[in-house]
Amino acid sequence: MLLLEFSMSPLGKGESVGRYVSRSLDIIDRSGVDYRLNPMGTVLEGNWDEVMGVMKRCFEAMKKDCDRISVSVKIDYRKGYRGRLGSKMASVEKRLKRKLKS
Amino acid sequence: MLLLEFSMSPLGKGESVGRYVSRSLDIIDRSGVDYRLNPMGTVLEGNWDEVMGVMKRCFEAMKKDCDRISVSVKIDYRKGYRGRLGSKMASVEKRLKRKLKS
Amino acid sequence: MLLLEFSMSPLGKGESVGRYVSRSLDIIDRSGVDYRLNPMGTVLEGNWDEVMGVMKRCFEAMKKDCDRISVSVKIDYRKGYRGRLGSKMASVEKRLKRKLKS
Amino acid sequence: MLLLEFSMSPLGKGESVGRYVSRSLDIIDRSGVDYRLNPMGTVLEGNWDEVMGVMKRCFEAMKKDCDRISVSVKIDYRKGYRGRLGSKMASVEKRLKRKLKS
Repeated sequence: MLLLEFSMSPLGKGESVGRYVSRSLDIIDRSGVDYRLNPMGTVLEGNWDEVMGVMKRCFEAMKKDCDRISVSVKIDYRKGYRGRLGSKMASVEKRLKRKLKS
Repeated sequence: MLLLEFSMSPLGKGESVGRYVSRSLDIIDRSGVDYRLNPMGTVLEGNWDEVMGVMKRCFEAMKKDCDRISVSVKIDYRKGYRGRLGSKMASVEKRLKRKLKS
Repeated sequence: MLLLEFSMSPLGKGESVGRYVSRSLDIIDRSGVDYRLNPMGTVLEGNWDEVMGVMKRCFEAMKKDCDRISVSVKIDYRKGYRGRLGSKMASVEKRLKRKLKS
Repeated sequence: MLLLEFSMSPLGKGESVGRYVSRSLDIIDRSGVDYRLNPMGTVLEGNWDEVMGVMKRCFEAMKKDCDRISVSVKIDYRKGYRGRLGSKMASVEKRLKRKLKS
């Protein structure tokens, strides 16, 4: 299983791109793949084809009305681990023995 | 004000790097700069010198016992906006008229 | 056509990971997809499935002997443009009326 | 010494942002810090304050006429190594016993 964080924005659609970002989140939220939204991107958990498939659907939707698109992606694969959307942060809090802002 | 997300990991310290990541989170949490932790990084909000200063302190601490370090950073600056650690996600949920996972 | 830059490294294989990076470059170089190597990653040019296919092959090869893998990816899609592996830099040099280091 | 790759673009200035990117490259090229331009960003080599200082000057210049700016940064620090703008690629070519496209 892997964690994949991505953010995807159109260039040339003005300074406010919330309309396009919301459409991606709609696709992600309906995909069945587990995720967490944060202020700078969305983190998905699944195998390579699952998470890449969701990202591609977001890209295909954005391409329909956006001629230039930037995507930023970060992947953390770890063999034999799952449920890391929650456990990675819990592990840091356990080490520090206090709650962090999330 | 800008949002800066970063993640910082040592190479050559084995597969589990939670010990080093926790030390960074301790620095961030005590810095006074507002932040949100997510499974793939930490998002800080502040001006350039504030957020870069926190990141540099994390780097200086990690350098003490790590000889190779990777850092990944993403910045979203928007003039005249603040409080976006919460408002960016709220704005997407408002458009979609439902709660998302965060 | 899109440009995709990526870098992929194992965690837990020590500080020197050139052996694994070289194997990826071998895959990329034999893929038939056009690319340029730089000190921090490799930039591919092609359509979504082509460039993602190459990246997946690199990932599958690395997974064979690496249990934790980090990948960093950046995509720049621009409708109707191709040959940007060379033209993006040429355009900057033309504006500045001098050669840059590349 | 560290390698830092970054790309910086305004949002809300249309699809073509070469004018702003060229201004950054002018700052980088005159900075005295060694660098290599590639189709997706610029890689600088120096210590933390040097490379961050150049990136900040680019940001300050872009802020003057851009109200929303995205920056993507990747850092590879390795204690005791320098000259890696050239040597990282040479090392891959040596392992593969052939020239790669760069």
